[in-house]
Amino acid sequence: MDMPQANPAVLSRKAELVAALHGLLPGDAVIWQEEALRAYECDALTAYRCPPLVAVLPRSTEEVAAVLRLCHSMGVPVVPRGSGTSLAGGALPTADCVILGVARMNGVLETDYDNRFIRVQSGRTNLSVTGAVEADGFFYAPDPSSQLACAIAGNIAMNSGGAHCLKYGVTTNNLLGVTMVTMAGEVLEIGGPWLDAGGLDLLGVICGSEGQLGVVTEATLRILPKPEGALPVLMGFDANEVAGECVSDIIKAGLLPVAIEFMDRPCIEATEAFAKAGYPMCEALLIVEVEGSRAEIDEQIARIREIAMRHNPVEFREAADEDQARRIWLGRKSAFGAMGQINDYMCLDGTIPVSSLPHVLRRIGEMSAEFGLDVANVFHAGDGNMHPLILFDANKPGDLERCEAFGAEILKLCVEVGGCLTGEHGVGIEKRDLMTAQYAPDDLEAQLRIKDVFDPEWLLNPAKVFPLHVTASRRAA
Amino acid sequence: MDMPQANPAVLSRKAELVAALHGLLPGDAVIWQEEALRAYECDALTAYRCPPLVAVLPRSTEEVAAVLRLCHSMGVPVVPRGSGTSLAGGALPTADCVILGVARMNGVLETDYDNRFIRVQSGRTNLSVTGAVEADGFFYAPDPSSQLACAIAGNIAMNSGGAHCLKYGVTTNNLLGVTMVTMAGEVLEIGGPWLDAGGLDLLGVICGSEGQLGVVTEATLRILPKPEGALPVLMGFDANEVAGECVSDIIKAGLLPVAIEFMDRPCIEATEAFAKAGYPMCEALLIVEVEGSRAEIDEQIARIREIAMRHNPVEFREAADEDQARRIWLGRKSAFGAMGQINDYMCLDGTIPVSSLPHVLRRIGEMSAEFGLDVANVFHAGDGNMHPLILFDANKPGDLERCEAFGAEILKLCVEVGGCLTGEHGVGIEKRDLMTAQYAPDDLEAQLRIKDVFDPEWLLNPAKVFPLHVTASRRAA
Repeated sequence: MDMPQANPAVLSRKAELVAALHGLLPGDAVIWQEEALRAYECDALTAYRCPPLVAVLPRSTEEVAAVLRLCHSMGVPVVPRGSGTSLAGGALPTADCVILGVARMNGVLETDYDNRFIRVQSGRTNLSVTGAVEADGFFYAPDPSSQLACAIAGNIAMNSGGAHCLKYGVTTNNLLGVTMVTMAGEVLEIGGPWLDAGGLDLLGVICGSEGQLGVVTEATLRILPKPEGALPVLMGFDANEVAGECVSDIIKAGLLPVAIEFMDRPCIEATEAFAKAGYPMCEALLIVEVEGSRAEIDEQIARIREIAMRHNPVEFREAADEDQARRIWLGRKSAFGAMGQINDYMCLDGTIPVSSLPHVLRRIGEMSAEFGLDVANVFHAGDGNMHPLILFDANKPGDLERCEAFGAEILKLCVEVGGCLTGEHGVGIEKRDLMTAQYAPDDLEAQLRIKDVFDPEWLLNPAKVFPLHVTASRRAA
Repeated sequence: MDMPQANPAVLSRKAELVAALHGLLPGDAVIWQEEALRAYECDALTAYRCPPLVAVLPRSTEEVAAVLRLCHSMGVPVVPRGSGTSLAGGALPTADCVILGVARMNGVLETDYDNRFIRVQSGRTNLSVTGAVEADGFFYAPDPSSQLACAIAGNIAMNSGGAHCLKYGVTTNNLLGVTMVTMAGEVLEIGGPWLDAGGLDLLGVICGSEGQLGVVTEATLRILPKPEGALPVLMGFDANEVAGECVSDIIKAGLLPVAIEFMDRPCIEATEAFAKAGYPMCEALLIVEVEGSRAEIDEQIARIREIAMRHNPVEFREAADEDQARRIWLGRKSAFGAMGQINDYMCLDGTIPVSSLPHVLRRIGEMSAEFGLDVANVFHAGDGNMHPLILFDANKPGDLERCEAFGAEILKLCVEVGGCLTGEHGVGIEKRDLMTAQYAPDDLEAQLRIKDVFDPEWLLNPAKVFPLHVTASRRAA
């Protein structure tokens, strides 16, 4: 993966930059020693690494603004970082950048149960947002797999989703407002805990902008009352396509489960070996969770059973109690860890129309044979958000490159069937060269112009989202 | 209301413009005769009128692009128009503009029930979107009061809502993608029927941009399966504040009715005289509608009854059948017509935190006495979207001005309590001077820069959304 040449003028001024940062922040908030900087050399896309020039850990919006003003005046690129859990390389440094980490900004600023929102600093982890309100019966809906670690800042940057987003929507559907600092150090208040925006609604374009328009320091989030109860059912099928058709039929029927999760045989096998959840050995599993009152749950399960039966499941298992419910989820929640035990893998993230699931699963199987690399599928099927895991051997020369080429073909297939090359992980560096497969030149140009508005010098989170030659020509302009 | 000076250079080239438009469009699609242009001199905010220079009625995206390229090259302002039902003056012409009406672009381009979307031309009316899919059991959720007439283009421009948006969200929550033509005539494809956007999500900022960023010619909309059943209940209270508290308690309890509508005594009286719906005479009425299966409906109604009883309602009426349900809605649906029979009125549109309803209703009552103008309240209470109707006499000198001043104070109050100066009608010309009450200079500047990107000459829908002096300085720059 190519990265842009580091700017020698910036590299040569490291001492001056560090001294100036020390003037703005407490001593322990400026990290400049080579060994300490190793901690920031990559995010969860560990195949790519590059230590930054400096890292800073501010504690307030004012400190963030001061850092950005300084970097702006010195022409130093800035890479914002939440918890560093990006699977798309969204927080990968450049050698001449300042990593601006928001991890220390993790406070709760306001909770308002009457109007159902919470305002937090953006470094707060996803799960601890729910942690702050659950004793009072509320929760924050988006639940990425990394929710124990990932920061709200990163959730906003990537418009993150999760298993339960089928019903509750992804980050953009649960984000009410942000405080954002631009590269020039302006502090903007965008959105807020109300229904509409007067004038232009900038919140939508901020959410999912991958830290390229500004650094979000505070966020107002919608919180929801916890449902009365929830129940998962597990069903097994003897072919991926049949499970795909069952998902499509559930959605078509107008049912809205909280989650519809999909696992195929390679994934079931790895998971069983690891977590021993007692899953049936079959070609494809679905976990469908419904929630509400007992009456609502019973009614939804009855309708789901009826639809499932039309597809001759090899198993249809309802959870009779909390413990059985936990066991049904156990395997799914261990899936990524289980796969990691036995293989190197690359986790893709594309979105397709739900009705295309059977076709796309079949094509991925065919392409797997063509490329000679195995694929395991474990994903949020209900909203068509696929996560094919391509298995490879990092020690085998050429395997990573073949894996990347295979991944690109899968994402192009997603676009071809009327889908999108990302669902919840973002573009980052991973998918930047595929943007031209999704967007016509005029469409891409419209996005570039918005980036120009917020960051005319293209200093913020460089070399991401857009193809490298596009970014380079923009910076030169 | 001030409007900008017409550009004499444009006025003097009318004949040339008309001839050039005739070269691009069929004869009947170009309207230039003074009498015919009267039809376009105002929208539903009829207090302000100005005939345009020319009006055109294209039938396709290509024709729209051709018209915009021509106007762009000649420096002619363009005011896009859906069905002209804006209550904020969103489609008010300037004397030197071309009205670009999309009313003839009303076709259905694609329906996809499996993936639950419909693609339509933007001139299609809101209700006829549902009309195209209801035989197959689907509907389009946002339902503005003007849904029989209003166009999807206008719904997108204003991010329109409606009574049933409490559960299903407003336009932005149901819009999946658009085809949009910029002032320079570029055709952009933004969004689509999938979960996420790769790179920057421009759809959010397009929705609600009041026709200032481009002309939307086609839209991909989410359609939903019709619920099994629905049932309204009607409850009467002896004070506005008590009804407000009841709304707040329903929302706080985590219930999510499809609609919670509010009417106060002046509105109930006018409505009863007009529609004879059999409403109880009291200070405030709520109509709460729930939907789902019979079991779900019963359970929700029981919980709502329990909450209502805590506030000592003077009446709690459940609909036993379709006919009773229709009668409960009859008065509410006639409310605007009924008020129009007995008074001139200005309909405001502000949004507040639901918990502020009792306070804001009390303050509006006090201000009504101070300004010496009566107010009737009929609005979507569940999501805090208020519609105070200020009653005035258009024939009495000074009454309109007093009404405008009173309206501005109410909207400032909405902002003060943590709300927003618009809910679903948009800013238009009506609220442009209040934008500075909502936004700090830097926040407003960020919006202006986005406008600069899409329409650097500020030719599209001029003199709306932003204060006039801001627009003027931007055009001069």
